[in-house]
Amino acid sequence: MALSKKPVNGMKDILPAEMEIRDYVTSVIKDTYRSFGFTPIETPCMENIANLSSKQGGENEKLIFKVLKRGEKLNLETAKEEADVVDFGMRYDLTVPLSRFYSNNANNLPTPFKALQIGSVWRADRPQRGRYRQFTQCDIDILGEPSNLAEIELITATTTTIGRLGFKNFEIRINERRILKAMAAYSGFTEDQYDSVFITLDKMDKIGVDGVAEELEKDGYAKESIDKYLGLFKLLEDKKDVAEGVAFLADTLGEYLDPEVVNNMKEIAAAVNATKAAEFTLVFDPTLVRGMSYYTGTIFEIAMPELGAACGGGGRYDKMIGKFTGNDVPACGFSIGFERIILLLMENGFKIPESPKKVAYLVEKGYPADKLVEVMKQAKEARENGQQVLVVRMNKNKKFQKEQLNKEGYEEFVEFFNR
Amino acid sequence: MALSKKPVNGMKDILPAEMEIRDYVTSVIKDTYRSFGFTPIETPCMENIANLSSKQGGENEKLIFKVLKRGEKLNLETAKEEADVVDFGMRYDLTVPLSRFYSNNANNLPTPFKALQIGSVWRADRPQRGRYRQFTQCDIDILGEPSNLAEIELITATTTTIGRLGFKNFEIRINERRILKAMAAYSGFTEDQYDSVFITLDKMDKIGVDGVAEELEKDGYAKESIDKYLGLFKLLEDKKDVAEGVAFLADTLGEYLDPEVVNNMKEIAAAVNATKAAEFTLVFDPTLVRGMSYYTGTIFEIAMPELGAACGGGGRYDKMIGKFTGNDVPACGFSIGFERIILLLMENGFKIPESPKKVAYLVEKGYPADKLVEVMKQAKEARENGQQVLVVRMNKNKKFQKEQLNKEGYEEFVEFFNR
Repeated sequence: MALSKKPVNGMKDILPAEMEIRDYVTSVIKDTYRSFGFTPIETPCMENIANLSSKQGGENEKLIFKVLKRGEKLNLETAKEEADVVDFGMRYDLTVPLSRFYSNNANNLPTPFKALQIGSVWRADRPQRGRYRQFTQCDIDILGEPSNLAEIELITATTTTIGRLGFKNFEIRINERRILKAMAAYSGFTEDQYDSVFITLDKMDKIGVDGVAEELEKDGYAKESIDKYLGLFKLLEDKKDVAEGVAFLADTLGEYLDPEVVNNMKEIAAAVNATKAAEFTLVFDPTLVRGMSYYTGTIFEIAMPELGAACGGGGRYDKMIGKFTGNDVPACGFSIGFERIILLLMENGFKIPESPKKVAYLVEKGYPADKLVEVMKQAKEARENGQQVLVVRMNKNKKFQKEQLNKEGYEEFVEFFNR
Repeated sequence: MALSKKPVNGMKDILPAEMEIRDYVTSVIKDTYRSFGFTPIETPCMENIANLSSKQGGENEKLIFKVLKRGEKLNLETAKEEADVVDFGMRYDLTVPLSRFYSNNANNLPTPFKALQIGSVWRADRPQRGRYRQFTQCDIDILGEPSNLAEIELITATTTTIGRLGFKNFEIRINERRILKAMAAYSGFTEDQYDSVFITLDKMDKIGVDGVAEELEKDGYAKESIDKYLGLFKLLEDKKDVAEGVAFLADTLGEYLDPEVVNNMKEIAAAVNATKAAEFTLVFDPTLVRGMSYYTGTIFEIAMPELGAACGGGGRYDKMIGKFTGNDVPACGFSIGFERIILLLMENGFKIPESPKKVAYLVEKGYPADKLVEVMKQAKEARENGQQVLVVRMNKNKKFQKEQLNKEGYEEFVEFFNR
């Protein structure tokens, strides 16, 4: 059968130029997060299919690459539906595997447990430009820490990392699921309406306040509630400072908003603003929803000026681990948009700082073996002194060869001739 | 449905203690190989199923995790065999993907192309102790270099890496497919018998020379051929020096052995021995076979004194890329036994050199938010000075908490009390 040169549809080969940037970004991420006490873990790329179909993953559960049963377990003749022929699936995120990992290994992990995961995930999305069906996610999570120390450390560690990668003037937008709910309740929406209202609210940055009003009306909500609700957002527009924003809401919403939520947000903002190690602004964004239904408290997102969309996000999800263990464990996480960061760095012609000097040794064809040994010794010494040394045969068209090597970053050449 | 805490059968969760060693080993490997001019690449974990079923992978092709087709492409009702319901498969090694990658991207790659790949592979083996169905491979390959410069660089780069990881007194065993064939031809075996003879020869280290003789007899080969063949190995027993071994064979085998093979082996040995950056011995091993049928020239293996089995290996495979492109490209590779190295380091209680000082800040419960900001500032400064700082709430049982943190490597504690 003819072999196919192309990668699987929707997935990509990564060439050295991009891979070197990915490796550099990975090492900055690991070093920085490690300095905050996060420890690396890894889970298998496959999970039992039931774990991936537990409704934690929302829409992503429709995009699972499923793994065929093997050997005697597979019976195609009697199979009626997919569930009969698959046992595993490729993970679509790192959060479900983390929850399983924690339930499986809690006895061997410290409390709180600060986890760092960098790994591939798979989603059988329709392939499209710049969006791949295998991509890297990069998550930090703190499990077992109920206080806002978790949020403070997550936001500080992540912004420090993003800053070390050279990004400036970005925003961290923060909100709270309980603020979302309080604003909806105050405006007259009932609890069963929240999810639908929030889905519409989430479109604010795309369709604007008038668009949101229109959609809510179309959904049949009371004009009075809609006006009251959107009026709040209008009043909050110039209150992007977290302390100011939540103080205003505390005054306005009254008993609808738990004072503990207000205090919590103020404390997070004070600590994050006082210990900044990067140039960013912490912003209160009452329109921030974050799709996943598992969030229970704070939610946050990284917004880059260069980018329309978010470049990472996270929040508190205190109820997920209980799904595995029966006992809830406080949990909070922050995911960096790894692929988007790589894309931005590539587009901006990013150069890796402090990379070693690259020297190419060109050895003429027919160079005697005993003298080649001397060349290798010279290369050995240079490598031990921190140089990156490529030893290659000299081509007939030496000029072209040097031009090609120059494109690979080799700026210095040493030539070895037969005589 | 109840969720399962365990990883998929035969795969494993990797905890921080092991993961930190894996990360360290990975960084040593990447830094060292990079200094030799190897550049990192990555391919998707899935390949089109036809590419994985091309007979290049030998027995591994029976162990493929296959991926179910999706959407309209899947028709369970009419499906008769596996091939009807799957389109992709998980890669079982990194060599087949590399060949595909090279055929797909050759126009954008330098010649020769020196590739470094570290990635997971999957094999649906029966699960057993210490052997997992997802594991990491670490390969370097040089594509487009016909001369023994490839072998010299591969062996030198790999031994330098192994040495930097602290291993000493290991062996690199080397042989040549063409030497294997010449010895068999000289002894009277015919070409169609080679594969079967080599499969038996490969068991020499397990069943000894008598065992090999017995098995060859059982297979019906002529007594005369067997005696002549095994006599050669006896004569070679004290000729572990490569130059000496191949010189002896040149004399003995005469026209059966191409002088170019002899020269080639001598040149490799001279260069490798003269530029050693680790304590190892290069050994001529005429019994070395290496299972994969795709090898065409030199073959080599790492033997560790601590380990019964090989800890990596490789060789020249000049005919594989032609399977994709129609044009053969000289190719030579070396794969480090990543998982075995990790296992050895873990068993020997390996400590990562020069890791940062780990300090834990214990903050009493109810510590006021404004003072917490000062703690975070202190942590920030310490982190910027290279320390790994963990900020955690102080538990009621502080003694136990410190003991636990001590197990995590925290040896210094700073305590913050409410008054």
